[in-house]
Amino acid sequence: MLKPEDNERLVRVGPGKPAGELMRRYWQPALLSEELPGTDCPPLRVRLLGEDLVAFRDSNGRIGIVDAYCAHRRAPLFFGRNEECGLRCAYHGWKFDVDGNCVDMPSEPAGTPMKDRVKLKAYPAVERGGVVWTYMGPRERMPEPPDFEWTRAPSTHAFVSKTYEECNYLQALEGGLDTSHASFAHNNYLGDKRALRNIDTAPRIEVETTGYGYRYVSTRTIDADRRYVRVYHYVMPAQQMRGAFESWFTYRNDKDAFRVPKSDGHIWVPIDDEHTWVYNWTCGRDRSVPLTAEFIAEWEAHAGRGKDDLIPGTYRPKRNLRNDYLIDRAVQKTKTFTGIEGINTQDYALQEGMGPIVDRSQEHLGSSDKAIVVLRRLLLDAIRAVERGEEPPGRDPRAHRTLRPYDAVISGDTPWQESFASELVAKW
Amino acid sequence: MLKPEDNERLVRVGPGKPAGELMRRYWQPALLSEELPGTDCPPLRVRLLGEDLVAFRDSNGRIGIVDAYCAHRRAPLFFGRNEECGLRCAYHGWKFDVDGNCVDMPSEPAGTPMKDRVKLKAYPAVERGGVVWTYMGPRERMPEPPDFEWTRAPSTHAFVSKTYEECNYLQALEGGLDTSHASFAHNNYLGDKRALRNIDTAPRIEVETTGYGYRYVSTRTIDADRRYVRVYHYVMPAQQMRGAFESWFTYRNDKDAFRVPKSDGHIWVPIDDEHTWVYNWTCGRDRSVPLTAEFIAEWEAHAGRGKDDLIPGTYRPKRNLRNDYLIDRAVQKTKTFTGIEGINTQDYALQEGMGPIVDRSQEHLGSSDKAIVVLRRLLLDAIRAVERGEEPPGRDPRAHRTLRPYDAVISGDTPWQESFASELVAKW
Amino acid sequence: MLKPEDNERLVRVGPGKPAGELMRRYWQPALLSEELPGTDCPPLRVRLLGEDLVAFRDSNGRIGIVDAYCAHRRAPLFFGRNEECGLRCAYHGWKFDVDGNCVDMPSEPAGTPMKDRVKLKAYPAVERGGVVWTYMGPRERMPEPPDFEWTRAPSTHAFVSKTYEECNYLQALEGGLDTSHASFAHNNYLGDKRALRNIDTAPRIEVETTGYGYRYVSTRTIDADRRYVRVYHYVMPAQQMRGAFESWFTYRNDKDAFRVPKSDGHIWVPIDDEHTWVYNWTCGRDRSVPLTAEFIAEWEAHAGRGKDDLIPGTYRPKRNLRNDYLIDRAVQKTKTFTGIEGINTQDYALQEGMGPIVDRSQEHLGSSDKAIVVLRRLLLDAIRAVERGEEPPGRDPRAHRTLRPYDAVISGDTPWQESFASELVAKW
Repeated sequence: MLKPEDNERLVRVGPGKPAGELMRRYWQPALLSEELPGTDCPPLRVRLLGEDLVAFRDSNGRIGIVDAYCAHRRAPLFFGRNEECGLRCAYHGWKFDVDGNCVDMPSEPAGTPMKDRVKLKAYPAVERGGVVWTYMGPRERMPEPPDFEWTRAPSTHAFVSKTYEECNYLQALEGGLDTSHASFAHNNYLGDKRALRNIDTAPRIEVETTGYGYRYVSTRTIDADRRYVRVYHYVMPAQQMRGAFESWFTYRNDKDAFRVPKSDGHIWVPIDDEHTWVYNWTCGRDRSVPLTAEFIAEWEAHAGRGKDDLIPGTYRPKRNLRNDYLIDRAVQKTKTFTGIEGINTQDYALQEGMGPIVDRSQEHLGSSDKAIVVLRRLLLDAIRAVERGEEPPGRDPRAHRTLRPYDAVISGDTPWQESFASELVAKW
Repeated sequence: MLKPEDNERLVRVGPGKPAGELMRRYWQPALLSEELPGTDCPPLRVRLLGEDLVAFRDSNGRIGIVDAYCAHRRAPLFFGRNEECGLRCAYHGWKFDVDGNCVDMPSEPAGTPMKDRVKLKAYPAVERGGVVWTYMGPRERMPEPPDFEWTRAPSTHAFVSKTYEECNYLQALEGGLDTSHASFAHNNYLGDKRALRNIDTAPRIEVETTGYGYRYVSTRTIDADRRYVRVYHYVMPAQQMRGAFESWFTYRNDKDAFRVPKSDGHIWVPIDDEHTWVYNWTCGRDRSVPLTAEFIAEWEAHAGRGKDDLIPGTYRPKRNLRNDYLIDRAVQKTKTFTGIEGINTQDYALQEGMGPIVDRSQEHLGSSDKAIVVLRRLLLDAIRAVERGEEPPGRDPRAHRTLRPYDAVISGDTPWQESFASELVAKW
Repeated sequence: MLKPEDNERLVRVGPGKPAGELMRRYWQPALLSEELPGTDCPPLRVRLLGEDLVAFRDSNGRIGIVDAYCAHRRAPLFFGRNEECGLRCAYHGWKFDVDGNCVDMPSEPAGTPMKDRVKLKAYPAVERGGVVWTYMGPRERMPEPPDFEWTRAPSTHAFVSKTYEECNYLQALEGGLDTSHASFAHNNYLGDKRALRNIDTAPRIEVETTGYGYRYVSTRTIDADRRYVRVYHYVMPAQQMRGAFESWFTYRNDKDAFRVPKSDGHIWVPIDDEHTWVYNWTCGRDRSVPLTAEFIAEWEAHAGRGKDDLIPGTYRPKRNLRNDYLIDRAVQKTKTFTGIEGINTQDYALQEGMGPIVDRSQEHLGSSDKAIVVLRRLLLDAIRAVERGEEPPGRDPRAHRTLRPYDAVISGDTPWQESFASELVAKW
């Protein structure tokens, strides 16, 4: 459980709010590169940390992330024209470049000094790994741009998608840092005694805090000789990296398509206090094994966000809270623990079903919640650091470059640190 | 008219609110038995007095009414699994019985002492007369379970349904305790001078307070010799019982199907401040005249809640505020006073059309509103009693057992008390 | 930019609010005459200045604009019966005339003194120019009824429609008093160098305050010899009149249908703080040139409110914020500045797209915004006048009778005052 006042500090993400200010000290995914597919393509609405913004790609391919409303009379720039190196407001034709400079003011007399004085709010943007990232904090404290193995891997070996989730980022993030629910929420193998998910439902959890957040490790006993060990990273403020090779998902799973050496992860980005974008990345671990289009399609469908799973023209799942995720109670009785299709749809059902912001004062945490407890402590400490004018941890991409998660079955007594040593280093 | 502060005291039903605490001292209908049709059937969302709950029927047929959110991390138990004598959360597998005990905690090490410590909020439930009742107040003050003639009558002679109403319970209840609107809102016999509803539109009203609430009686003059007398009961906190034999509804009505000796009633149950469940019961008065399926179907349709009147899969009327109850202005001109089909649909149009919570400081009450005035006084007195730590009236089912309403046409000078004496006693 | 507290004073229109009280000192359009097409036709919901009302036309053709809720128990009068010279509540049959007198109280004993005591809130109504106007302020300060050229013109020469706009009245009104956006938002002639809209995008603006509000004039240079001059009137509190002869709209427009001598205008009427009715009038300037049905149909379609442009049975545009006004980005690239069809739909996209109430503290106003600045000052001054108990300006219809706007191309140096002198006087 958490004191209500600490919960408030953790969940509110708007400007000036404790968690909002913390979030503004990190580069955040703002959109997928594919959402601005070409130069001078239509502008895009972006809502981030409670702020309404518009993104556009200019004639040179540069991306602008600017105030949703024109500096002149606050007309919506979404209806603007993406013209030669600038976004022009459809109301009075004022035109702004990606840095927020006013480069044309045709409703005023030529040579008006106002043109140089007026600035539009604009946040810096970089593209890495198919994602457009932005930084919404104080410019003088802007860290180096993101640098993860999955953002460096070639497109043959990495894939990223995004999904809309209708709740606060924290309960979504907490779901991502929770390993034990996989035995329940994601158990699609009811009654199969040999399925790994059914063998040991109370994993031992180790959490080791680091400069970038923490590494957490779950160990499940398979039999007297063997154990399944999974190593995750939590990267501040809201990224998870997880081992996702073959042991876990494919054990007792005859889908050969999923026997691919890869890592997976999510980033949870607050849209506002009650809505979250989930970015989902997959990164091949082995240069000799590219991620094929077939694999990606099948994998995304398995997660519940395949091309037939989303409302056309959006990143919103068709299975959602308004239709109870199309739960099938007969399937729930006999085949899968939830009766809900899609691994991440199962997560959304549980996380969104808590209500938009969970009341953590009502919780009863156990030993399986250790990673959650440490997460909250790290975030509260980092919020306090920002409030004291200090730098919160986990902003240096040099600490992220080499991170790679891993999972495997270990036989015998070898400590996982020894077995996994060479696997826990980024290769891209 | 009512002082705004008294209105607030009467209409707010959440935990800790004056009327909310009063409502919590009585057994309340929580759902229909038919909504949990079998052992281990899917759990059901129940919202009551502003609290989100989940109901389930366990393997032994017992009913649990528990917190909508798991005691562990507040995952929604609606998506849980109704398993062998318990509801298991789909997040981490914690399992609770109908009393809120945690009977399995598989995400924690075997033998964890947490299992015995953790309790889920659970309210007691009993089934009576096709209704699942619950008590949400202090356990040490729980009254005996409900006992009405209609809950004791066999299923051959009693029927209960429910309907969703989109306004505060009090304006709905006040409509139920108001006899004079029947001449207007429910006058489907415009221009028929012999229709009872057109003969005397200003009934005399007597209100006699009792231990359980009050008995109220309306008298309408038919001619020099005859009068129509209807005896109702108001049973605290929000039940109405009304005489519904043949005189009133069938007078000038050639539907032989409705010539059935019966009593009717409603219970209004607050979902929250702005939504109400209306339970509608019908109880045969005569052992030799069962309520046939045909009669029930026709009667429910007449009331506006027949099988074709509800949105499939719900208890919500198709005719509702969003479509102006499909009012037919031509019918309103020539045939019925409202132009709206369905006796209770007419009520909902008027009650919901007031807005979610009526502003009673703007009213002008007359002599026909006597029952309304006494209702408010009784409720305010009972609220004060609860606030003083005393027992509010009307909680003893022994005072309810014998109640039966009645209505008939009386010729001559016989007082109704004399004419009706033997009819006003429950026979079941 | 505007101080947030002044913005608040200007935008809130409910009873007791500064702008709400100002608005209540003027006759306001409440509905179109066509909405109450005949005597004793169905009553109509009217929401105005944050108040819920019901309008009806009685047996004598008189119009009542009364409280939406009955004086008895606050039942919705919309479901009432429009009977012989009065509106009868469907709950208990109380009947009220257009002045709010209770003329029948059938649920009470005959002769009850309550009948004379009870009054229903009722506002006076007059019909002028196809519009039903009402006055919601103190009765002793009621001005003379509206009298404009367009309300006096015969139906052969005048036309009025209305449209629903989902934002505060002020940002809509400001759009109407802004001439420079026509070169951008309404430029449907991209790339046509001879189109007037492309020739001079920074019009000079003159604002001359008057007793009724102000006259404002825009001048655009066409070439060394010619200029396009447009004279508008702003009539307090929220009417615009504009010259709309042939020069502006038909210059470079081969639609002969639009070559009609006429004036145009709008009135913005606050429904509540976040919704507005826009009344759109057109008035022929020349007795010999009536406005044909074909012209009106084509003109209304051009504006975006033709019969195929509205959601059937409503005055709400099909192209709206929820579907991004069906913007066509390809058309926006090559043909029209906005890619949105309908001159006024373009306005709504920009005005509604600002959000329900624009934050004027973020603005940067230029010389082209002069009329906007004066508008705000006039309104704030008038609000203060009302607060001091004084009469705000612009209430005397004698000052409105003669107003006529105009626009034309002027060659040579003649001042527009001279060129336009005879055209700026109402002829009807």
